[in-house]
Amino acid sequence: MSFQLAVSETTPALPKSFELADAPLLRALRGLPVDHTPVWFMRQAGRSLSEYRAVRARANLFEIVRSPDLAAEVTIAPVKRLGVDAAILFSDITVPLAAAGIDLEIVPGVGPVIARPFRDRRDLERLRSFRPERDAPYVAETVRLLVRELDVPLIGFAGGPFTLASYLIEGGPSKTHARTRALMYSQPDLFRELLSDLAAVAVASLRAQALAGASALQLFESWVGVLDPASFSRHVLPATISIFDALRDLDVPTIYFGVGTGELLSRMAGAGSDALGVDWRVPMDAARARLPTGMAVQGNLDPVACLAPWQVVREQALEVLRLAGPRGHVFNLGHGVLPETDPETLRRLVDLVHGYEHRRARLTGTLVAR
Amino acid sequence: MSFQLAVSETTPALPKSFELADAPLLRALRGLPVDHTPVWFMRQAGRSLSEYRAVRARANLFEIVRSPDLAAEVTIAPVKRLGVDAAILFSDITVPLAAAGIDLEIVPGVGPVIARPFRDRRDLERLRSFRPERDAPYVAETVRLLVRELDVPLIGFAGGPFTLASYLIEGGPSKTHARTRALMYSQPDLFRELLSDLAAVAVASLRAQALAGASALQLFESWVGVLDPASFSRHVLPATISIFDALRDLDVPTIYFGVGTGELLSRMAGAGSDALGVDWRVPMDAARARLPTGMAVQGNLDPVACLAPWQVVREQALEVLRLAGPRGHVFNLGHGVLPETDPETLRRLVDLVHGYEHRRARLTGTLVAR
Repeated sequence: MSFQLAVSETTPALPKSFELADAPLLRALRGLPVDHTPVWFMRQAGRSLSEYRAVRARANLFEIVRSPDLAAEVTIAPVKRLGVDAAILFSDITVPLAAAGIDLEIVPGVGPVIARPFRDRRDLERLRSFRPERDAPYVAETVRLLVRELDVPLIGFAGGPFTLASYLIEGGPSKTHARTRALMYSQPDLFRELLSDLAAVAVASLRAQALAGASALQLFESWVGVLDPASFSRHVLPATISIFDALRDLDVPTIYFGVGTGELLSRMAGAGSDALGVDWRVPMDAARARLPTGMAVQGNLDPVACLAPWQVVREQALEVLRLAGPRGHVFNLGHGVLPETDPETLRRLVDLVHGYEHRRARLTGTLVAR
Repeated sequence: MSFQLAVSETTPALPKSFELADAPLLRALRGLPVDHTPVWFMRQAGRSLSEYRAVRARANLFEIVRSPDLAAEVTIAPVKRLGVDAAILFSDITVPLAAAGIDLEIVPGVGPVIARPFRDRRDLERLRSFRPERDAPYVAETVRLLVRELDVPLIGFAGGPFTLASYLIEGGPSKTHARTRALMYSQPDLFRELLSDLAAVAVASLRAQALAGASALQLFESWVGVLDPASFSRHVLPATISIFDALRDLDVPTIYFGVGTGELLSRMAGAGSDALGVDWRVPMDAARARLPTGMAVQGNLDPVACLAPWQVVREQALEVLRLAGPRGHVFNLGHGVLPETDPETLRRLVDLVHGYEHRRARLTGTLVAR
């Protein structure tokens, strides 16, 4: 089944004159007023959707990413099924590393596994040779396919330098990231060089996606929350600032996301992104209080809450909306959708968020308070 | 080699008139002034010590715990080798669960694995039958052996109800604790009952250790940091308050510890312990600011920093001491000693902490500032 066929069979003609700049996602990321809070879900195109599992039965993750038709198909599926306000390119943060020639495999149930982990300066060579247009042309091709078909913004993304460094150094996923932090403490110069090279990889990858038509960009610095604030500022922030600096001329709104970053939020705000993604541990009003006034936030329903009965999901989601307030908020989970999530729960969440009226909630709150 | 022989061969006679109440650890936990900041290390008796590995070559973890001679031997080893201000009973937080008849195994390189994970109300029966004096008499016997031999306080401990619930529900260690939180959200009454039963197990275990002679008690609620503050207050705090309430008459200082608890510290302070253990992510002055004035803190050098060259370890440790201030601070790592840590680094850390003078550091700071 080809992508074109699937789309023409099931979707109506899309309005080509659609004004993407007015899309709620992009307005919210820029802190502008919106008619309704925009919502999308990290990993919305993943294993929770039968559409994705059907494609995965025929191709592994890298094969999907390298086939623009397949990648576009799984990117579009959640937009059609859930009614979210954004698509996020189907890919993986390790795709540029693999494209740069690093011997990397996604092992089901484990995650990215690297045959020869990073050990010394000589390992930097391969990273430095990365050219998206030559090494991963399928990514831009997928983006171009998608922007022709979608009527919502497409989010491009890349892995943050600390998170990619951690996969390279540990050789795979890790609970403690001990080797990564040990290298950071023991060989700070080498660590800085590695992060600087990984930042360049992220910039090249993100620019290629934006130039192909992505309307927003997210940096997934998922594991940076294992660091204390001083180490973050010293060892990770400089490379991160260089990333957002190098994207500024694109005029594409940016999101910076990590897990367990409560202690880091105020410093992360200094990296230069338009919005910060917040995990479920930090209440949205507490997150706001640590950020510059008016900075947009994204999040932060606990993904595990989506496994609970709808009444619980609803209550928790309403609390997120209430704490985040009406302006500059993109509703999302605090981390990726869990595979066992019922897509129907996500669809109801989209309806709930779209129907939520901050003014009415405030009034009702006042009435109840009386 | 028996325990008695090992001790008589290598240690001098201990002063029997030693006044334990004046021990720096106990004074610091109570917020009283001390001559030097006391220091011990979580997992100080673990795999980083050759003494421990020698014993482990002959016996597995549960076999050591169930042999008072062996358990006492590995408990004492770090006190002799490192010069720390406290011993911590060699045991595991799952020992009471195993003693209660739960089919539990410590798998090397994995952690506790439970053959039949917790699923419903009927699984509570076994927990309710736990009686330390009948089911785990070796624990109190080890404690009695140790307090006769030690000239520093012995810390007893138990697992926190959320952390033990997570092992029971997941069937083993977990990165996301998704099943645990899903049960919490979906069946809050059952979850509360489970936590209440696990709190009773912790109380029984901690009281037995204190009555046998332990001078301080730590509750290891290691994984509670995966929760948002509202969920913590609703689902975990009540059971935790009941634990510290049930220990108060013992007049033994208590420590409450978890990892990644930055957002929870102010609420954890309400559980009723004397001190809070803080992981390495929260700078000690920030932690203090979230706690009631005068509440003691324990921590919080990044365990990974101990793998770095001494100059880095020293700099980070001095920063912990400076931020924590002179009163009510027990120096420790922010989590357990990593197996690959050089014991010599820990020994030097003990010397550094013992030699640190807050007044002189302040004066030097002033001079440097000029």
